[in-house]
Amino acid sequence: MTGDQQNRIVKVATGERKAELVFKQVRYVNIFTNEILQNDIAIQDGYIAGIGEYEGEKEINSDGILIPGLIDGHIHMESSMISPLEFAKAVVPHGTTTVITDPHEIANVAGTKGIDFLMEETKSLPLDVYFMLPSCVPATGFDESGAILLAKDLDSYYGNSRVLGLAEMMNYPGTIHLDDTVHDKIKQAKSFGKRIDGHAPGLKGKELNGYIAAGIASDHECSTSEEAIHKLSLGQWIMVREGTAARNMEALLPLFEAPYYERCILVTDDKHPGDLIEQGHIDYIIRKAISLGADPYHVLRMATYNTATYFNLQNVGAIAPGYKADITVVNNLSDIRVEAVYKAGENVKEIFNLIARKDSLLEKSDLEKDDVHLKKNGKHRYADIYESFRMNMLKPKDFMLKNKSKYTRVIEMQEGEILTNERIIENLNGIDVDRDLLEVAVIERHRCTGHIGVAFLNGYGLKKGAVASSVAHDSHNIIVVGVTEEDMCIAANQVFKNQGGLAVSCEGQMIGDLALPIAGLMCNKSAAYVESKLRILKNIVRSLGVNDSIDPFMTLAFMSLPVIPKLKVTTKGLVDVEKQEIVD
Amino acid sequence: MTGDQQNRIVKVATGERKAELVFKQVRYVNIFTNEILQNDIAIQDGYIAGIGEYEGEKEINSDGILIPGLIDGHIHMESSMISPLEFAKAVVPHGTTTVITDPHEIANVAGTKGIDFLMEETKSLPLDVYFMLPSCVPATGFDESGAILLAKDLDSYYGNSRVLGLAEMMNYPGTIHLDDTVHDKIKQAKSFGKRIDGHAPGLKGKELNGYIAAGIASDHECSTSEEAIHKLSLGQWIMVREGTAARNMEALLPLFEAPYYERCILVTDDKHPGDLIEQGHIDYIIRKAISLGADPYHVLRMATYNTATYFNLQNVGAIAPGYKADITVVNNLSDIRVEAVYKAGENVKEIFNLIARKDSLLEKSDLEKDDVHLKKNGKHRYADIYESFRMNMLKPKDFMLKNKSKYTRVIEMQEGEILTNERIIENLNGIDVDRDLLEVAVIERHRCTGHIGVAFLNGYGLKKGAVASSVAHDSHNIIVVGVTEEDMCIAANQVFKNQGGLAVSCEGQMIGDLALPIAGLMCNKSAAYVESKLRILKNIVRSLGVNDSIDPFMTLAFMSLPVIPKLKVTTKGLVDVEKQEIVD
Repeated sequence: MTGDQQNRIVKVATGERKAELVFKQVRYVNIFTNEILQNDIAIQDGYIAGIGEYEGEKEINSDGILIPGLIDGHIHMESSMISPLEFAKAVVPHGTTTVITDPHEIANVAGTKGIDFLMEETKSLPLDVYFMLPSCVPATGFDESGAILLAKDLDSYYGNSRVLGLAEMMNYPGTIHLDDTVHDKIKQAKSFGKRIDGHAPGLKGKELNGYIAAGIASDHECSTSEEAIHKLSLGQWIMVREGTAARNMEALLPLFEAPYYERCILVTDDKHPGDLIEQGHIDYIIRKAISLGADPYHVLRMATYNTATYFNLQNVGAIAPGYKADITVVNNLSDIRVEAVYKAGENVKEIFNLIARKDSLLEKSDLEKDDVHLKKNGKHRYADIYESFRMNMLKPKDFMLKNKSKYTRVIEMQEGEILTNERIIENLNGIDVDRDLLEVAVIERHRCTGHIGVAFLNGYGLKKGAVASSVAHDSHNIIVVGVTEEDMCIAANQVFKNQGGLAVSCEGQMIGDLALPIAGLMCNKSAAYVESKLRILKNIVRSLGVNDSIDPFMTLAFMSLPVIPKLKVTTKGLVDVEKQEIVD
Repeated sequence: MTGDQQNRIVKVATGERKAELVFKQVRYVNIFTNEILQNDIAIQDGYIAGIGEYEGEKEINSDGILIPGLIDGHIHMESSMISPLEFAKAVVPHGTTTVITDPHEIANVAGTKGIDFLMEETKSLPLDVYFMLPSCVPATGFDESGAILLAKDLDSYYGNSRVLGLAEMMNYPGTIHLDDTVHDKIKQAKSFGKRIDGHAPGLKGKELNGYIAAGIASDHECSTSEEAIHKLSLGQWIMVREGTAARNMEALLPLFEAPYYERCILVTDDKHPGDLIEQGHIDYIIRKAISLGADPYHVLRMATYNTATYFNLQNVGAIAPGYKADITVVNNLSDIRVEAVYKAGENVKEIFNLIARKDSLLEKSDLEKDDVHLKKNGKHRYADIYESFRMNMLKPKDFMLKNKSKYTRVIEMQEGEILTNERIIENLNGIDVDRDLLEVAVIERHRCTGHIGVAFLNGYGLKKGAVASSVAHDSHNIIVVGVTEEDMCIAANQVFKNQGGLAVSCEGQMIGDLALPIAGLMCNKSAAYVESKLRILKNIVRSLGVNDSIDPFMTLAFMSLPVIPKLKVTTKGLVDVEKQEIVD
């Protein structure tokens, strides 16, 4: 708020000046008293100036109930597979006006340039995007990621008012055993007075005490209410997560009761485009919680004021004088159907219409929509982001297994899980479709090393062709699974040509793809476009035989993440996650 | 917390290292879950390291209940009339481990040197003293105070981690009518992300909205629950005050209910030495609230965690890993009798014993106790504080009224109030003891101006002698009331000779005094000493005829404060507070 803004706001509040906008005699949720009140609400310069009797240049009547704009306390925006602008278009109409994002995925691809890109691209949206700095890039020592982030790389970000702290500290062993690189980051965040988020599923006892004593202030991995209440009683804030991959809300319903709810926050962690379209965002969690019997005022606090409090965001998360005029209008407190959204006092519909008009002007000047980010001097303005693949075209022989032996370890997928088992097969001489023994490969794509890890996978079900993806946690190399080396090579090369995304090949031909050229993770098209493309690709892959119990792309994306047991494949080969070592 | 400390704390938490101190299987109040839990609590380096099963170098068993160290969210320490060390000796045994003070009184005498003095003197106490910077020095344009503080004078303090914001903004007209000197201070505090406390009794409607929209985040002047709940619903935090001069707790009992209590804080504002000894401090408010039926967990939150949250003091106000080991042991949750206090993990009894031993060593070396602050090069180390009077000895004729007229305005005191009325008396030719028309004078004592305002006072009841004091809000000039000019002169000169304090004279002789040489407001003696001296002086004054319904010193101290209606006397003469002008 500038000095001039503040002066105008105070003048409107005292009645010395007419407000820009007044909601006349509207019902609104008072987040401090847990009740619905009715009054005029005066808006000036993007802030709520006064609540009482006011006149406005523009006056709005509404039958709906005004609630504070919703806040997602923890999300990886990249999981939506769409650009920040498209993400805003998808979530803001659902009442979300603020998100706290951890750019962990793009940072694993492009390091600080990835963070810079997201910070830049979220600067002027009708959505406030705050950042928690990725704490674990790369996720493990086995990962060949696009970057390594140390405390010194993060230092300059803490001066930015949109940076709220250090994101989910997944490295709990490093935290409690005083690993220097981990503690440098922890001490740094604390020295700036910033928050440190946690991520420690099931941690308890002395290890949990050590983790909390080190300064880890929250947890979003609780899957039982006992675990959550215990962590809360030791001082952690609990982020109740309900996203696409992990859904803990129902198990955590007891946390919606007083006094627990006062230190609980709603988060999604990740949200795929289909879910955003079909379900909604934070409004969906609120709706579901209320339908399960939670107190609506408690739920709303967990989606607004509590989140702002935890992140020390003053003047956000309530409808009161001096607060940002981030307001969501809902039909009632049971359906929570969003009727309108005001970001800093402006109707977001009008903002998005304005953006669309600007886009169409750009289209008229013959610019490709994907090329809004203009190339300069022949080089893309965000070359490191839009041309993030550093590798050579692959040949089928690159996928040949070098060492053959009598016994072969095979990754065994589990129904509906991202955990895997290890299985030993005797006298395996190559891909065996009848026994569902496919080849899976991870191709290093950040530094032209030529590293390719090849292994066998059981349980995917593919009968023909190959499936490739550059969304492959957490390093986002190319993962490809297939029935022949030729098809694997074709699919993987297509992902490379597209500078990221998904690709499906069959019998020597490409049969479907989705380009995700923003760091190999996102595209500039709408959520609806990406969702329909994804649906088509999933149908194609299922027609090639993939098991119904498996999400063909999401589950595949976790087969390369060497922090989730038991056997995973990386660019360096098979990793036994429990032993934390490379195995033959 | 240093890096080494943090490492040791984490090691203790994980069990890798033995704790310095462990409370074995103690009951403690969990401030996050509103319940009593039982467990081992391990302390290391002044912090709570872990809660579970721990071993310590030293182990303590206790039948009491551990609660977080208590916090006073708003006090003027000077009101205790004792030095910071003596203040700590008085309040810490009552379970207080943190206070947020507004050095408004000493700043009116000595400006930034007064603030510096209090910051220095509170640096090494077993009590954390945080500061809110005085916002209104002087209180009005009529005041001849010892200093004028502008935003530029406050700037350098905001870098200090013990400075939490801008203290009670009493100048609400300046706030809502955009006075530049006021808004410079408001904008400054906001630019540093710091809190601004409020002080606006009875403010409502558009004026209240303007005051809150300007950024005033709290109020400690609510005298009805309707006023408090209304302010709270507009986003202010409510400080429930129960001190010596103002006692609002009983009227605000509804605020102790959920959800209101979550944004309420217990404060004293001011606390005289007698009250500290007889009643206690924050423990007294807790005890009283519980006896009136308030939920003990709610009350405790308002005295610990809520206060820390409002002031953004992380790691204070709860018993949990990583929190400061500020712990008060009470017998139960109804009596709240304090059995022991641990400041940063150390028993305060031992700390005070250590201080006493040091003091006695100093005594042996023949140093006067008042002279612990050694003179250097012939000048007192804190000359501006300990020799704060800049005036000349007075003569009886200085007290003569210059202008006589047919009608005389008289200040009429009200029983039990600090408000006054105006009364017009005809043909008054001087002091008239029979009609209780005494002379009252305020003598400028900061800049040798020789300004003396003289007026008549009704309702005090003195029959003989004179009473003088340098505790005279807010400028702390010398106020003196008397039956003869000679006695007034003797009493006022005694205050000057003592470099501050109270003095009573009668028939040409001094008959009692209390020296307050620290800025004319405080002394280095104990609360018990000051209290007994005060009691004797009050008895003397009552024996001279002062009405029982009037506190002879406290009420007198407000007769010179030109912000409380109706008629007050200043160094410049009579002020009509409502009209805000000097009158004959």
